Amino acid sequence: MEAPRFTQIATFMRTPLAQSLADVDIGLVGVPYDGALTNRPGARHGPREVRNHSSLMRKFNHVTRTNPYDLCRIADIGDVEFHQIFDIEGAHRDIENFYTLLAKAGVMPLSVGGDHSITLPIMRGITDEPLALIHVDAHTDTWDSFQGSKFHHGAPFLRAVEEKLIDPKKTIQIGIRGAQNTLESWSNSLEMGMRVVFIEEVFENGIGAIIDEARQLVGDTPVYLSFDIDALDPIYAPGTGTPEIAGMTTIQALSLIRGLRGLNYVGGDVVEVSPPFDLGGMTSMTAATVMYEILCNLSECVDSSKLA
Amino acid sequence: MEAPRFTQIATFMRTPLAQSLADVDIGLVGVPYDGALTNRPGARHGPREVRNHSSLMRKFNHVTRTNPYDLCRIADIGDVEFHQIFDIEGAHRDIENFYTLLAKAGVMPLSVGGDHSITLPIMRGITDEPLALIHVDAHTDTWDSFQGSKFHHGAPFLRAVEEKLIDPKKTIQIGIRGAQNTLESWSNSLEMGMRVVFIEEVFENGIGAIIDEARQLVGDTPVYLSFDIDALDPIYAPGTGTPEIAGMTTIQALSLIRGLRGLNYVGGDVVEVSPPFDLGGMTSMTAATVMYEILCNLSECVDSSKLA
Amino acid sequence: MEAPRFTQIATFMRTPLAQSLADVDIGLVGVPYDGALTNRPGARHGPREVRNHSSLMRKFNHVTRTNPYDLCRIADIGDVEFHQIFDIEGAHRDIENFYTLLAKAGVMPLSVGGDHSITLPIMRGITDEPLALIHVDAHTDTWDSFQGSKFHHGAPFLRAVEEKLIDPKKTIQIGIRGAQNTLESWSNSLEMGMRVVFIEEVFENGIGAIIDEARQLVGDTPVYLSFDIDALDPIYAPGTGTPEIAGMTTIQALSLIRGLRGLNYVGGDVVEVSPPFDLGGMTSMTAATVMYEILCNLSECVDSSKLA
Amino acid sequence: MEAPRFTQIATFMRTPLAQSLADVDIGLVGVPYDGALTNRPGARHGPREVRNHSSLMRKFNHVTRTNPYDLCRIADIGDVEFHQIFDIEGAHRDIENFYTLLAKAGVMPLSVGGDHSITLPIMRGITDEPLALIHVDAHTDTWDSFQGSKFHHGAPFLRAVEEKLIDPKKTIQIGIRGAQNTLESWSNSLEMGMRVVFIEEVFENGIGAIIDEARQLVGDTPVYLSFDIDALDPIYAPGTGTPEIAGMTTIQALSLIRGLRGLNYVGGDVVEVSPPFDLGGMTSMTAATVMYEILCNLSECVDSSKLA
Amino acid sequence: MEAPRFTQIATFMRTPLAQSLADVDIGLVGVPYDGALTNRPGARHGPREVRNHSSLMRKFNHVTRTNPYDLCRIADIGDVEFHQIFDIEGAHRDIENFYTLLAKAGVMPLSVGGDHSITLPIMRGITDEPLALIHVDAHTDTWDSFQGSKFHHGAPFLRAVEEKLIDPKKTIQIGIRGAQNTLESWSNSLEMGMRVVFIEEVFENGIGAIIDEARQLVGDTPVYLSFDIDALDPIYAPGTGTPEIAGMTTIQALSLIRGLRGLNYVGGDVVEVSPPFDLGGMTSMTAATVMYEILCNLSECVDSSKLA
Amino acid sequence: MEAPRFTQIATFMRTPLAQSLADVDIGLVGVPYDGALTNRPGARHGPREVRNHSSLMRKFNHVTRTNPYDLCRIADIGDVEFHQIFDIEGAHRDIENFYTLLAKAGVMPLSVGGDHSITLPIMRGITDEPLALIHVDAHTDTWDSFQGSKFHHGAPFLRAVEEKLIDPKKTIQIGIRGAQNTLESWSNSLEMGMRVVFIEEVFENGIGAIIDEARQLVGDTPVYLSFDIDALDPIYAPGTGTPEIAGMTTIQALSLIRGLRGLNYVGGDVVEVSPPFDLGGMTSMTAATVMYEILCNLSECVDSSKLA
Repeated sequence: MEAPRFTQIATFMRTPLAQSLADVDIGLVGVPYDGALTNRPGARHGPREVRNHSSLMRKFNHVTRTNPYDLCRIADIGDVEFHQIFDIEGAHRDIENFYTLLAKAGVMPLSVGGDHSITLPIMRGITDEPLALIHVDAHTDTWDSFQGSKFHHGAPFLRAVEEKLIDPKKTIQIGIRGAQNTLESWSNSLEMGMRVVFIEEVFENGIGAIIDEARQLVGDTPVYLSFDIDALDPIYAPGTGTPEIAGMTTIQALSLIRGLRGLNYVGGDVVEVSPPFDLGGMTSMTAATVMYEILCNLSECVDSSKLA
Repeated sequence: MEAPRFTQIATFMRTPLAQSLADVDIGLVGVPYDGALTNRPGARHGPREVRNHSSLMRKFNHVTRTNPYDLCRIADIGDVEFHQIFDIEGAHRDIENFYTLLAKAGVMPLSVGGDHSITLPIMRGITDEPLALIHVDAHTDTWDSFQGSKFHHGAPFLRAVEEKLIDPKKTIQIGIRGAQNTLESWSNSLEMGMRVVFIEEVFENGIGAIIDEARQLVGDTPVYLSFDIDALDPIYAPGTGTPEIAGMTTIQALSLIRGLRGLNYVGGDVVEVSPPFDLGGMTSMTAATVMYEILCNLSECVDSSKLA
Repeated sequence: MEAPRFTQIATFMRTPLAQSLADVDIGLVGVPYDGALTNRPGARHGPREVRNHSSLMRKFNHVTRTNPYDLCRIADIGDVEFHQIFDIEGAHRDIENFYTLLAKAGVMPLSVGGDHSITLPIMRGITDEPLALIHVDAHTDTWDSFQGSKFHHGAPFLRAVEEKLIDPKKTIQIGIRGAQNTLESWSNSLEMGMRVVFIEEVFENGIGAIIDEARQLVGDTPVYLSFDIDALDPIYAPGTGTPEIAGMTTIQALSLIRGLRGLNYVGGDVVEVSPPFDLGGMTSMTAATVMYEILCNLSECVDSSKLA
Repeated sequence: MEAPRFTQIATFMRTPLAQSLADVDIGLVGVPYDGALTNRPGARHGPREVRNHSSLMRKFNHVTRTNPYDLCRIADIGDVEFHQIFDIEGAHRDIENFYTLLAKAGVMPLSVGGDHSITLPIMRGITDEPLALIHVDAHTDTWDSFQGSKFHHGAPFLRAVEEKLIDPKKTIQIGIRGAQNTLESWSNSLEMGMRVVFIEEVFENGIGAIIDEARQLVGDTPVYLSFDIDALDPIYAPGTGTPEIAGMTTIQALSLIRGLRGLNYVGGDVVEVSPPFDLGGMTSMTAATVMYEILCNLSECVDSSKLA
Repeated sequence: MEAPRFTQIATFMRTPLAQSLADVDIGLVGVPYDGALTNRPGARHGPREVRNHSSLMRKFNHVTRTNPYDLCRIADIGDVEFHQIFDIEGAHRDIENFYTLLAKAGVMPLSVGGDHSITLPIMRGITDEPLALIHVDAHTDTWDSFQGSKFHHGAPFLRAVEEKLIDPKKTIQIGIRGAQNTLESWSNSLEMGMRVVFIEEVFENGIGAIIDEARQLVGDTPVYLSFDIDALDPIYAPGTGTPEIAGMTTIQALSLIRGLRGLNYVGGDVVEVSPPFDLGGMTSMTAATVMYEILCNLSECVDSSKLA
Repeated sequence: MEAPRFTQIATFMRTPLAQSLADVDIGLVGVPYDGALTNRPGARHGPREVRNHSSLMRKFNHVTRTNPYDLCRIADIGDVEFHQIFDIEGAHRDIENFYTLLAKAGVMPLSVGGDHSITLPIMRGITDEPLALIHVDAHTDTWDSFQGSKFHHGAPFLRAVEEKLIDPKKTIQIGIRGAQNTLESWSNSLEMGMRVVFIEEVFENGIGAIIDEARQLVGDTPVYLSFDIDALDPIYAPGTGTPEIAGMTTIQALSLIRGLRGLNYVGGDVVEVSPPFDLGGMTSMTAATVMYEILCNLSECVDSSKLA
């Protein structure tokens, strides 16, 4: 990482491309799939461009002074390979199979989407019991079917509860906003027992209060952190499929992630980065930085004895 | 509005194109005129692009739970037709004539400009007595003549007071900022008795205080809400003719509008959206959302008995 | 069409929105579907933006002096309504159903895609016997299955031959170029008997020779004209999913279409316009002009006695 | 001009800012006026951006080996000062007054617009008798009134004939194309006796034939060269108000200008550059190069004895 | 400055181009040098584009009501002339020589970069003893050598301390953030005794506290204000070489500068504006406004008796 | 290469990243250096973005039917590592050292710049005797010193002759154009005996004549092909440092390269791609295609017996 940042092949964070999963504690994965989108496309190009802009990232966190590269072995392990991109359920099987391999190899995944539907097969691959979920997003993604599919990008967390991949009582959704055509998505989340934090609450009560509540809700349960880039205000993330104005600031987002250090992480993702709608790489650079901050948190959960 | 949002003809908010004014309570109108601008042009393209991006809008307000489409009949009634675009006063007559027809048909207008000069002929068309005015803007728009015209886009509210279309004592101007070559515009507003809220006051005292003051100032007087998109920081609205940095946030703007529910609205507008200077449709999408929030407020003022 | 071109609702060519198919001879249709793409997405936004830029179009062709609006009744008939966008075959049924209705109503369709897979269900809807085909494109689109589907956007003309919707002996493919991973697509076309005109031949022999050959090939057979915007050099059409440099010029394309006047047209389309990859609306404006030129040709095939 | 080209104040061609007209043979002038446009605005920003990109220009023409700076004294003489920008006729008076001063001072003008309406008052300022005119454009600009004005940007050459500023028999219009709503503009030119060269003729007969004809037509008559940037294909000049696809190439345009050396020039202009619609400065850079080539031609008409 | 803002030559703030330093109190200078950058280039184009966008600036500060043009003689004095742009130390000599002349002429400089390395030779030119320094930036710029040079853009303030151009005890660095590969830059600043204000402290304690501390630290010592545009969040300043998300807002930046009125200023600069990475001129417009606010502060330090 | 093209790590042409030079016949190399530029920067980002867009490339050439991957082993061998980017001569040593290693390993290089100065140290690394040179460019790059350096990007071929790396009598420069401040660069080339083909000759005589002459000139001499992307018209390659309008078309460029098959190639490069000035990746995509065509030519020169 000492070379000028515009040089060499673009891997995530300028980490080495893994030759074998055996040498990897945290695997950085691309999931270039956007076939489950309902509005503006392009998230298939997300992993490529987040890799590109992640060259700006470095080692030591200026707030926590964490250096994840000191704590564990981190590598880019490439993209999920797809064989059925025209069929949501087929593509989801491709994803699940990939993450099942990671789980077997003991690699903790930090993924870049792709649309938000990918979180469902990722979870299928990495867990056998309900996870706690920290879900940062403008939308609850607990709608039911749309245009004939139960697995579109607005539905993963309704499905994840049904499939017992997450515990709705240990799920917190942060940053929710934007008018809707029905009350369905909000009421589904609330009725299942999820904690829904609308954006107004973020601005009124502050990030500190949300951190406290999330930590209490999650406790020691294995937890997954899913960050939809549209949680952020579109000024930070114009390159996304379903933007909603008046969202979270990056200062809030980074404070939130840093405030959630020390939980029992099993993985995380950053999704819905759509480069064709981006402006000057702003969204990809922001996603790369969010990814770095999540990486700091995940790295503290790896058994560091392996490093020696 | 249930169809994928990228489909079909772009009308405002995906409302039907009105076949007759008789079936409309609130008319969404485009006023594609920018002949009165003093700096960067392009607001003539505003209605077209706000329509385009307003397809992202939906029904239920996530804060107030208002659904304006339940409360009244809302339709896109097209653009003002122009016959004299090279002459400010002629173009203003075209506008006035159009709004006079709306007033006669009992249609409350929610308009998209166009430059800010259009608010003057809109008011001429819809009122016979001084209105209260909530004016959100970076500029007071109370300059006198420039380059030989009294009717340029920096002058409408000086003219509106002279023509007794607004009551300066019931006028509040919010978000004012930016260096000026003379003190004229600020002192004109103050001398006429308007309440001028500079942006620093917005950040120091908060939106709540401004809402309280505005509600008290306006009371039950019929009130018009004019929102110049340059009130917002240019990061939210780069596509405008006279940007001034360090402006209002969208969170503040939406809170302000929501806080002004229940007043006696007679109309509103969103002006100065200049697509040629926009970045990725950010300004148009923001303007569409501001328009939706104003629509929620206006819809609560319509005699809902008509719906039955 | 006399009003300033930046005003009013954006319909195709500023034609009226049809209230009933009974009053329409040529229907301008949007097909906002891009679920069958193999590379860069975004063609779902094509109809919206081609409508937007088609406001620049006017009536009299400066070369042929044709005015299509004098010859027949032309209207925007909206977009195909989709109910199964996540399933190629389902979406194709939605398209086929729509065009079946048009065929019954005697409306000749001129469509804007969408990805090139849409031409297959359009043809299913409008013909019972093999059509002649003039196919302008960088790719032959006669591949077989990819990623598990036979109906992706690179396969429609292989399928169309199998389904006897087109006669390969009366099919000419113009503008073909770009390296390929296998020889399959080129050899499929040639083996079925299609005439494949690579771009080098266009530049060496000139458009006149191709026009002559195409006219002879097609003769009086009912003919469909399918124009993939990537036939053009990417400098004219950067907004497309699979650009190939060194393509056709617009002068060549317009000359080609004008040279093919007087054939027995049953419909046409312009496809693969992807606005998220466009630059300043160049591709949409170009597509709108190509559409206008095709419209001129189609309009001369309508029974003008209806107009009286 | 030896300094790095990104340095110092942006004057036209990096020439000195004139302190006095007495020291200037050819004056480079900006005319930032676009109030007479009928479609997309922005040409008011043309002079600023053409100045900016003209820093790329240098001295020796690689074809003719002319160095205009060796032949005469060339300076940037600033922009026309406007006092009535909201009134076409008033703005035209501002322009005429400026050029009358130039004419008195013996300065030959090379101007950058601004919309095409400016050529009319420029001619009023610089000539008392009918000039020959070489007019390169996509449009004939010989329409009559529109939206109540006789002086909009589509009318200057009809007015110029009426005012005897140009001799229609010694006028050639090159590059004409694009559909029109009426046949008026083409027939007006032809009926007045102008030579109208449609773009197809340019491609079919070649630039050489046009050069020959233009030279013969113009002869020794004092001649003005007016270059509307939309004569060029929009790929070279996307930043313009009324683009028409399938236009002239830059190779053709430069050959044309070089082929017209040695005529009796009295001035020239480059108009309709609209930076808000430009892409990466392409239009401004192209306009600056066209301006340089015209400058080479004009410089050969100056009495070089003054230099000594 | 009364003319329409899109007209005339682009000088800084539309001030006159100085004919002689004798008539200037504050000189606005461009330093178009970016040869010392370690990441994304383009700051060489900064002065040109800040000049361009500074035409939007005007006279009276809406908060302080300062009009700098009433207080002293302000002029654009052009760019530093470079003769050795391929050699950092040579280029720095060109800069130093230029500022030495300014110092001799009694002209206070307000400069626009260029990369941050330029502040070192500017200081060499204007002071003989250690200055106090207010340094607003995302980075401390106190690294040591990189790629074989001690004078790259991340090192100027380590060098300035070594060369006794600044007093580290009277230096405050505000807005610092972003992960680093080593702890070097932060520890260098702290070990030399600089006050390092990380961005989190800005958000937690507020600008008022920082103003108080900076005023106390600086006291009456002659002080230089160096503003790296990357101190701001990339949403305000995407056009810069080393962006770091989650930065200062413009409201904070303007409040900070206004809060630092009345200090004993000897000069200031705005650096690291890289137009090739900018979006719609946002960064240049923001830089121009920051420059205006600094100008207000500097203007109050000039001996106004000269004006009479 | 069968996977969807938007997936996986971006290597040149989606070739494998070489683990050892021993397995490579043709090495695709990035040279991200732009420190020798005299005008607009950004070519340091060239290799990264050409890799990104080269994912669109495939195997079989549609004209020659060459499949380079059948003929030899081709791999991405990463970027030159730099240790002295602030010093042209130091950076050139870094480059030379890298290519010396390639030469020793018997790897033929196909490089992507970077500015054109890199061709000099590449040649130093790969040859001991004068090469023939096919040089496609808008500029002859045979200037002498500028701003104190002999090794800037406008000088490499004057130096290469001096250092006996190329034989000027076997050098052809194609596409030359653009005004210059002195006649130096043209006359230097001509005086050394190079064949200089100005762009007008390309358009007048056609590519075929140039191919014939170049083949004759080069004969069997080992030959290097250096392609400066600014040889192309800026419509194809806006992202470059010194654009000149009215350049070569891509059809011409591809024909030229294909016409030069079968020469005795020892390497090639594509230089001066500057992504910060690019529009929608057009330049990078074009450069990737030019690179592919050169690769086809080079692959035919490799001893294919190695493959077995």
